Amino acid sequence: MDPYMIQMSSKGNLPSILDVHVNVGGRSSVPGKMKGRKARWSVRPSDMAKKTFNPIRAIVDNMKVKPNPNKTMISLSIGDPTVFGNLPTDPEVTQAMKDALDSGKYNGYAPSIGFLSSREEIASYYHCPEAPLEAKDVILTSGCSQAIDLCLAVLANPGQNILVPRPGFSLYKTLAESMGIEVKLYNLLPEKSWEIDLKQLEYLIDEKTACLIVNNPSNPCGSVFSKRHLQKILAVAARQCVPILADEIYGDMIRDGLVKLSQRILGPCTIVQGALKSILCRTPGEFYHNTLSFLKSNADLCYGALAAIPGLRPVRPSGAMYLMVGIEMEHFPEFENDVEFTERLVAEQSVHCLPATCFEYPNFIRVVITVPEVMMLEACSRIQEFCEQHYHCAEGSQEECDK
Amino acid sequence: MDPYMIQMSSKGNLPSILDVHVNVGGRSSVPGKMKGRKARWSVRPSDMAKKTFNPIRAIVDNMKVKPNPNKTMISLSIGDPTVFGNLPTDPEVTQAMKDALDSGKYNGYAPSIGFLSSREEIASYYHCPEAPLEAKDVILTSGCSQAIDLCLAVLANPGQNILVPRPGFSLYKTLAESMGIEVKLYNLLPEKSWEIDLKQLEYLIDEKTACLIVNNPSNPCGSVFSKRHLQKILAVAARQCVPILADEIYGDMIRDGLVKLSQRILGPCTIVQGALKSILCRTPGEFYHNTLSFLKSNADLCYGALAAIPGLRPVRPSGAMYLMVGIEMEHFPEFENDVEFTERLVAEQSVHCLPATCFEYPNFIRVVITVPEVMMLEACSRIQEFCEQHYHCAEGSQEECDK
Repeated sequence: MDPYMIQMSSKGNLPSILDVHVNVGGRSSVPGKMKGRKARWSVRPSDMAKKTFNPIRAIVDNMKVKPNPNKTMISLSIGDPTVFGNLPTDPEVTQAMKDALDSGKYNGYAPSIGFLSSREEIASYYHCPEAPLEAKDVILTSGCSQAIDLCLAVLANPGQNILVPRPGFSLYKTLAESMGIEVKLYNLLPEKSWEIDLKQLEYLIDEKTACLIVNNPSNPCGSVFSKRHLQKILAVAARQCVPILADEIYGDMIRDGLVKLSQRILGPCTIVQGALKSILCRTPGEFYHNTLSFLKSNADLCYGALAAIPGLRPVRPSGAMYLMVGIEMEHFPEFENDVEFTERLVAEQSVHCLPATCFEYPNFIRVVITVPEVMMLEACSRIQEFCEQHYHCAEGSQEECDK
Repeated sequence: MDPYMIQMSSKGNLPSILDVHVNVGGRSSVPGKMKGRKARWSVRPSDMAKKTFNPIRAIVDNMKVKPNPNKTMISLSIGDPTVFGNLPTDPEVTQAMKDALDSGKYNGYAPSIGFLSSREEIASYYHCPEAPLEAKDVILTSGCSQAIDLCLAVLANPGQNILVPRPGFSLYKTLAESMGIEVKLYNLLPEKSWEIDLKQLEYLIDEKTACLIVNNPSNPCGSVFSKRHLQKILAVAARQCVPILADEIYGDMIRDGLVKLSQRILGPCTIVQGALKSILCRTPGEFYHNTLSFLKSNADLCYGALAAIPGLRPVRPSGAMYLMVGIEMEHFPEFENDVEFTERLVAEQSVHCLPATCFEYPNFIRVVITVPEVMMLEACSRIQEFCEQHYHCAEGSQEECDK
């Protein structure tokens, strides 16, 4: 038998040609060529796999992030509040998980949309008279990423398009493009606390627009829309007959299709589902209050410190756990763009932020504000030192350089 | 503003026409009709959602399963060994989960393919010299259903086909058809302990065949292929240049595409990942031994009891937790098919099995053998009573009726 080639795009130490010897038990291994059969091996990843592209990974994996060996590394790049240990989970949550484990009741299969009892708990937790919610409105998924995946998959066919915020969370684009759905970017305006450019938004909508994604509070902006602004967004959607996909799944529009799609994966972690009631009911209000107080205080601290640095233009956040900082690139002629700016910031000051090119928004960086206060201050002071060392007066703007 | 209709296929008490009143803040809510915009609301589930079809749900949800009120219900229908409490999880597993919780290290994001350390543990657990395995070969998913989803999505494009066993697990078809991939069924032969009909298998392969699914041990058959039979399957795959998708993901062929696709959902439950090392290393061999002994003993018990019942032809299982039972329908003329047979079995004897029409295999039923021994015996004795009451001699086969 001829050795055969397996087509693949693997990195690393895998052989690209494999010799396979198969015991064919006496039957001829070289049969006459048959009509319509494959003459040789050629296993390629599907178009969907080829179209699946995560811009954060593509940018971050290719960045040079070698810290200054004389300074301990401070990472402000990953939106994960658990890494520093300063924002521990409430003990009630841990206990609820242990109780679910000990009960032995959550080690088997749940319905693909989640246990009815867990969905009832969530419905009653989020229910309010203006927006009534029942268990049948709730579908549990394996993380928000699967929820977004299901929502896009139920709303849009290949060839349609969706409207996505810029700057915005990159997963919308990753998921949509892997499904053959076009992404159109609408702008958030930093000068208006990252409100949506509604005129541009409405202009982008066409007969192929399957939905409008509204991410509120925003990653990476940390902005929260006012009620008035939300009503204006609704007015655009109503006028143009385009459904809104909110980052949390709400709305009754598409339930049956979602139930079907949820059966593609047989439901999320059952232990967590078992613990849900206690998590929702027993976690003390204090836990949420303390977490929010900490985030607000750190956001103010970080905004204040960065706003005082010539060349930086932070945008004050009001939600989530992020802060976007504009870089006046004309004052940093050494750096070609935000990617190079963040690379050099790591190399010299061991402070790692994400270049906002990851969020389709060049010349900004995203700062994560969940780190301990002392670390936040230290990071800001290093960013200040970095900026002072690299700041150049732009031509014809001596005035600004004097400040 | 006109009331608008949201198209949907919801059951239940949801209104199919919604009046929506949007505060449009002084702007005209009835703008001039614009080129290429939508005139009115029409939100339909996507083609993918419409194509997602779970045959087990479709058949089981429409079955009449009203038990006999005078007999307690015995369910032999769901392949979940945890429901009766007779096969509890080993305490080491529960403890490992608690340790992962207490560490506080697994409450954030993991890489979408899983933590490296968890993947290393799995690689070393399953590694053997003939089939070496490294962490880079391992991708963690949210259950096997997501693993199958990823494997199909990376191997096949819409318009291609896959080969799926009949009888077989229905999820292969559900997933494939939702992606526009055609399913071709190859036969398992009950008279050969459910070995594959290799000639038919090879005949089905054409130039559009993306992969051959081999499910071993089999759900629903509980069969295990011999080494010799596996080698024959490999020979067909090698001759026809068709990759094999085993129910467990092994093989190095398609890794990079899988990594990309895994980023669509940002990884499975992190707590479980954190507990993996202890689960793999500390669970005592006794636990596995006892579980397997129990299953073997229950399988023998069930097979023996059902083999003695005229009209039934059980096929002895050698793996998994299922047993397939052929029904000689000519001896049960009251019942049109296996669905009606199982419905009546519930109605009269309160014993619930799955009709194998769920697995594309009419005139068989699938029995789950994980129930406690006493319950297993009681179920068999009720099935016997049921068969005796409904058995009719087929014309011209008096001989058989005498036994």
